[in-house]
Amino acid sequence: MKPLVTDRVGALAGYTPGEQPRGGRLIKLNTNENPYPPSGRIAEAVARAAGEGLELYPSAMADELRERAASHYGVRAEQVLAGNGSDEILSICLRACVDVGDRVAYTTPTYSLYRTLCEIAGAEVVEVPSRFCADLADTGARVCFVCNPNSPLGYGVPAAEIEALAGSVDGLVVSDEAYVDFGDTSAIGLVGKVPNLLVVRTFSKSFSLAGARLGLAFADAGLIAELAKVKDSYNVSRLAIAAGVAALDDHETMVSSVARVRATRERVAGRLREGGYDVPDSSANFLWVGCGDGARDLYQSLRQGGVLVRYFDAEGLRGGVRVTIGTDEHMDRFLELALAAR
Amino acid sequence: MKPLVTDRVGALAGYTPGEQPRGGRLIKLNTNENPYPPSGRIAEAVARAAGEGLELYPSAMADELRERAASHYGVRAEQVLAGNGSDEILSICLRACVDVGDRVAYTTPTYSLYRTLCEIAGAEVVEVPSRFCADLADTGARVCFVCNPNSPLGYGVPAAEIEALAGSVDGLVVSDEAYVDFGDTSAIGLVGKVPNLLVVRTFSKSFSLAGARLGLAFADAGLIAELAKVKDSYNVSRLAIAAGVAALDDHETMVSSVARVRATRERVAGRLREGGYDVPDSSANFLWVGCGDGARDLYQSLRQGGVLVRYFDAEGLRGGVRVTIGTDEHMDRFLELALAAR
Repeated sequence: MKPLVTDRVGALAGYTPGEQPRGGRLIKLNTNENPYPPSGRIAEAVARAAGEGLELYPSAMADELRERAASHYGVRAEQVLAGNGSDEILSICLRACVDVGDRVAYTTPTYSLYRTLCEIAGAEVVEVPSRFCADLADTGARVCFVCNPNSPLGYGVPAAEIEALAGSVDGLVVSDEAYVDFGDTSAIGLVGKVPNLLVVRTFSKSFSLAGARLGLAFADAGLIAELAKVKDSYNVSRLAIAAGVAALDDHETMVSSVARVRATRERVAGRLREGGYDVPDSSANFLWVGCGDGARDLYQSLRQGGVLVRYFDAEGLRGGVRVTIGTDEHMDRFLELALAAR
Repeated sequence: MKPLVTDRVGALAGYTPGEQPRGGRLIKLNTNENPYPPSGRIAEAVARAAGEGLELYPSAMADELRERAASHYGVRAEQVLAGNGSDEILSICLRACVDVGDRVAYTTPTYSLYRTLCEIAGAEVVEVPSRFCADLADTGARVCFVCNPNSPLGYGVPAAEIEALAGSVDGLVVSDEAYVDFGDTSAIGLVGKVPNLLVVRTFSKSFSLAGARLGLAFADAGLIAELAKVKDSYNVSRLAIAAGVAALDDHETMVSSVARVRATRERVAGRLREGGYDVPDSSANFLWVGCGDGARDLYQSLRQGGVLVRYFDAEGLRGGVRVTIGTDEHMDRFLELALAAR
């Protein structure tokens, strides 16, 4: 019998998500989760949604969330699309904008999911080793992904750079802003002005809702309507809608959690630099810890000490590890091990 | 500027989900939701999941749910895939198994989402007007969808017919069993024996969880692993996992809710037949109400009376409406209007 899946899918390795250990023994600093819990009002809102009406389908376009997000971010509801995590929105982009063989471009290093999504879509991947998205201008890509701030390096991409890129290409430019609340380089102010821009946000990081799976996209209403054609009919649950609305309504909790993470980040970066590590400035909730040849050993000795960080066995990334900013207590344990390993 | 989306997506009409009126004035019998709320234990489990750990990603393969479903349905955990509703699982099937131009076949009338998914995938659609899936055997399709029980007509497809179809084709046969708990024709007993069979289930109907977005697929472990390559990394939230586990643990609530719906269904079918409607036996939580030329008028007069049913302006379906089985009180109002309109 012929294989049931296509040759392309058969050849895929698939995306390797960061390890999610099931026991509680490891200090988990590997998948950029927020160490602080979400607003208590979110749990209340979800419990209410679970207690009434769960037998009914949600709004197909998550209308209540869409309207709240529009008012919160200063756009129109028609310029907002909600997704089952921002990962779903990135996947929707490629399904909508890319035929097999079309080009998709991004600078490297970056979020490794982009390559996986391209392989699923059968896109021709154009990887440009650079930290300047201007270097994507001549790639002829139908979609350019800009990870803003960049993961795993942590640098923010100024909105002016994104606007310039969008002005110089025919295709879609995606500003993937999963971490942007920890920095200050959002391109969301360009929505409605730059027709080929899509700004993608998530509730997983700054809002502490990785477990709820919720993301948003912002773009011209016409583009949002096209993207909506290829999403699942009811892609966001009543529970996630309730969580998202409550999260936006209690914005202060997010802002305060972000402020704590940033303060810890700066303290840890300073200590690591004093200890001889090469740590670039970060606009995100993680640090890139450059340490040359010893990166894999550092990963292993941290793990043996009970701290899980992320080591990427990939071009341009073998010289460091990425550490998520956890609580001060967890970061002190990380620092102790990292400084001892130097 | 060239359009941002592909020509194929630009030409799509997109799926039209059943109307979800936001006010509470209409009796909603149009999208096959369960009129009875889910088990109270589900709300408790979701509230617990919302109150602890929501800042962490869920298990990428929804391990806890997968294991519970395996034990509940008598398969191995590796033979289970969880999805963001069964719609996501159907979409995953086409992403994994179909290249542009490959054939996908199903009998008609059937669930209208199949055509939408095929159009998104660029598949060549083969629609065979029939109620026997054996008529799909010679289509050369890479994927055959069997809506079991059929929507909107309500007939169940015996497992033996599905097994015979799977034995006569090279591609994947999908037994889409959204409504199967209301009948008795599941093909799930064939999982592990028939390598090219995928059985798809949802928590939206019998388990009263349409708002939580949760579906399951069952197949050989190798096929499940291939499908998992093209899903979003964390496609099922911690909230949905908690809901699903609690739903399976409180199976009795589902069984009792299904029994009530079936009893109401038989009563309503009898009354409609007495009133001169052509109502085939149903294995689902809805009835097909055949009424010849007057179907659109029936839809309109029901709506004016405050009852929303589903009218499909599509080949083979203009001679009736589909009515979801609601509470006895709601069905009495429906009967009153429907019998007066005859």
